[in-house]
Amino acid sequence: MTEKKVGGAGLRGQSAGETALCTVGQEGTGLTYRGYDVRDLAEKCQFEEVAYLLLYGELPNRTQLDEYKKRLMSKRELPQPVKSVLEQIPRDAHPMDVMRTGCSMLGTLETEEDFSEQMEVADRLLAVFPSIITYWYRYSHDGVRIDTATDDDSIGGHFLHLLRGEKPNELHENVMHISLILYAEHEFNASTFNARVCASTLSDMHSAITGAIGTLRGPLHGGANEAAMAMLEQWSSPEEARRELKAMLDRKEKVMGFGHAVYREVDPRNAVIKEWSRSLAKEVGDDTLFPVSEAVEQMMWDEKKLFANADFYHASAYRFMGIPTKLFTPIFVMSRHSGWAAHVMEQRAKNRIIRPSADYTGYELREVPPIDQR
Amino acid sequence: MTEKKVGGAGLRGQSAGETALCTVGQEGTGLTYRGYDVRDLAEKCQFEEVAYLLLYGELPNRTQLDEYKKRLMSKRELPQPVKSVLEQIPRDAHPMDVMRTGCSMLGTLETEEDFSEQMEVADRLLAVFPSIITYWYRYSHDGVRIDTATDDDSIGGHFLHLLRGEKPNELHENVMHISLILYAEHEFNASTFNARVCASTLSDMHSAITGAIGTLRGPLHGGANEAAMAMLEQWSSPEEARRELKAMLDRKEKVMGFGHAVYREVDPRNAVIKEWSRSLAKEVGDDTLFPVSEAVEQMMWDEKKLFANADFYHASAYRFMGIPTKLFTPIFVMSRHSGWAAHVMEQRAKNRIIRPSADYTGYELREVPPIDQR
Repeated sequence: MTEKKVGGAGLRGQSAGETALCTVGQEGTGLTYRGYDVRDLAEKCQFEEVAYLLLYGELPNRTQLDEYKKRLMSKRELPQPVKSVLEQIPRDAHPMDVMRTGCSMLGTLETEEDFSEQMEVADRLLAVFPSIITYWYRYSHDGVRIDTATDDDSIGGHFLHLLRGEKPNELHENVMHISLILYAEHEFNASTFNARVCASTLSDMHSAITGAIGTLRGPLHGGANEAAMAMLEQWSSPEEARRELKAMLDRKEKVMGFGHAVYREVDPRNAVIKEWSRSLAKEVGDDTLFPVSEAVEQMMWDEKKLFANADFYHASAYRFMGIPTKLFTPIFVMSRHSGWAAHVMEQRAKNRIIRPSADYTGYELREVPPIDQR
Repeated sequence: MTEKKVGGAGLRGQSAGETALCTVGQEGTGLTYRGYDVRDLAEKCQFEEVAYLLLYGELPNRTQLDEYKKRLMSKRELPQPVKSVLEQIPRDAHPMDVMRTGCSMLGTLETEEDFSEQMEVADRLLAVFPSIITYWYRYSHDGVRIDTATDDDSIGGHFLHLLRGEKPNELHENVMHISLILYAEHEFNASTFNARVCASTLSDMHSAITGAIGTLRGPLHGGANEAAMAMLEQWSSPEEARRELKAMLDRKEKVMGFGHAVYREVDPRNAVIKEWSRSLAKEVGDDTLFPVSEAVEQMMWDEKKLFANADFYHASAYRFMGIPTKLFTPIFVMSRHSGWAAHVMEQRAKNRIIRPSADYTGYELREVPPIDQR
């Protein structure tokens, strides 16, 4: 651990606690969840296996996985008061505000009274987030009240089914597994750390997850794939992309989807999602977005030595599956909740309230003047 | 600043940034807001002056204060969708879940689109929190839909008016000023730090405050005055209190309302609220709760050398004003919001994303076994 003065510098490089959940940026591995390389997990597992790993401590065997999926399937329905709340949220609301409010509202109805309920609450939220966002989306955009119980056996498939009104094909369901696995956990990133700060007061799971959603909402954190999409969709050819990107770099504009606060040389998640985005491009017969993305990736490396991070090819992958851009970050919530909840439980198991100090830069002691002398 | 390894120890004594808002536990002062001793502020100011000081940077003159109060008065009404949401929350919900959900829901309707709106959002929340909690409380408990616009010129008076259906007397309004001043700000306590972590991703004000509410909800943070009340109301005389407290101490039970994470010798807020609680005891003709409280305070000092903190005499003061115990922590929100919002703006003004590291205690790299070999 580096020991240095970090006032004002966002605690960068400073340890704020212990975790057995994740390593980020260690040499030769990149990103591990409970000791497994994320690329290994993405190749061999479904998302529910990884969520189980994070929440329960080990990968499930086949019986455990089947039971876990059934349990999650049984927890997809929304209580009527949550539906009523979602119906009050306007069509033009920020979708992350919908997730945050849905989570908070659920907490008023299914309150975690005791930490013995923590796993049940964690599973419930994992199962219900796709229902929350799609119920609101379909009601506010299409005017329909969807039934959020489906027989899809995966969270990603369930989400696509609710969103599009029909079961996804195998490729799309697979890509959702991959995507949800890649985003599931990332050590003490800001939203996870926010959840741990909340949990350290021994507050409830819904409070911790609600705060984490609000933190992930920030453009420096969860919004990068949406921002990458907004940029990429302006360009209709690799040539145009190179020309416009060059102009952006000359204007010193920030290009989203590149570089990382922790990784120095490569984001291990990029190569994985890139290949799946390529497969999706083939499936839909794309000859624009994927080549444009590759041109941007190449140029950012040539000009800036910046590598594409996990967010960059997520933009095209989600677009190829017909997911509206504004729902990209809510998908991140569906995934990262597994990491957040695991961190909340880890914090509780060995808790001390997180209460740092600050360097004071303000006025010396002064006397309150009478109001008429101000 | 102390520089030491703090992994797992809640960042205690570790600087996590700079602030000009507050000092806590500095010799000779105890607690200052922007350089003013909190006791000096409590003696000479109304709460709205202190909120203005925290949010706008200096104490207001008379014209500024009058204008500020008028502005806050104009922001007390709840949009119909927020009322609908509050009506969906059951009577037995946790009141902090109500605050958290009300704040989050408001954010879906009055979204902070740009930081140029931050002061407006901060003032709106300051003005509307009493409306949120009392609208829900009166609807769920008394079945009435109250009009949340009143002509009371203070936030505390407005709150008591909505809660009890009539204007409070001068003593009660004064005590609310004092109480809201004492709780307004406390440097990098857990809820404030939580708000800053959220703000550091450049997320919106509603997200930061929603997370802070969820953090304050924790029993190690905001619930101490409620817990003190639950203890004190069991005892009908100082003798009984001493006997039962002795038994609690013998059983090594934690006594809420004593000691502090930062203060070592005294909580400067205690003497202030204690005298106001004494005045209220006289007003209502109390000969039980206040003497019981004094007996407990004395015995905790004699036996444990633990001093009463700000929460301890708040219990009796609120009780004497007829405030239900479950609304104690929501009052804390009405007050501390002024500090939270000021910290959010301070974080934004000189931002770096708060993203610490962790000490890894988990598995070394291992290979994902096929599911049938687990």
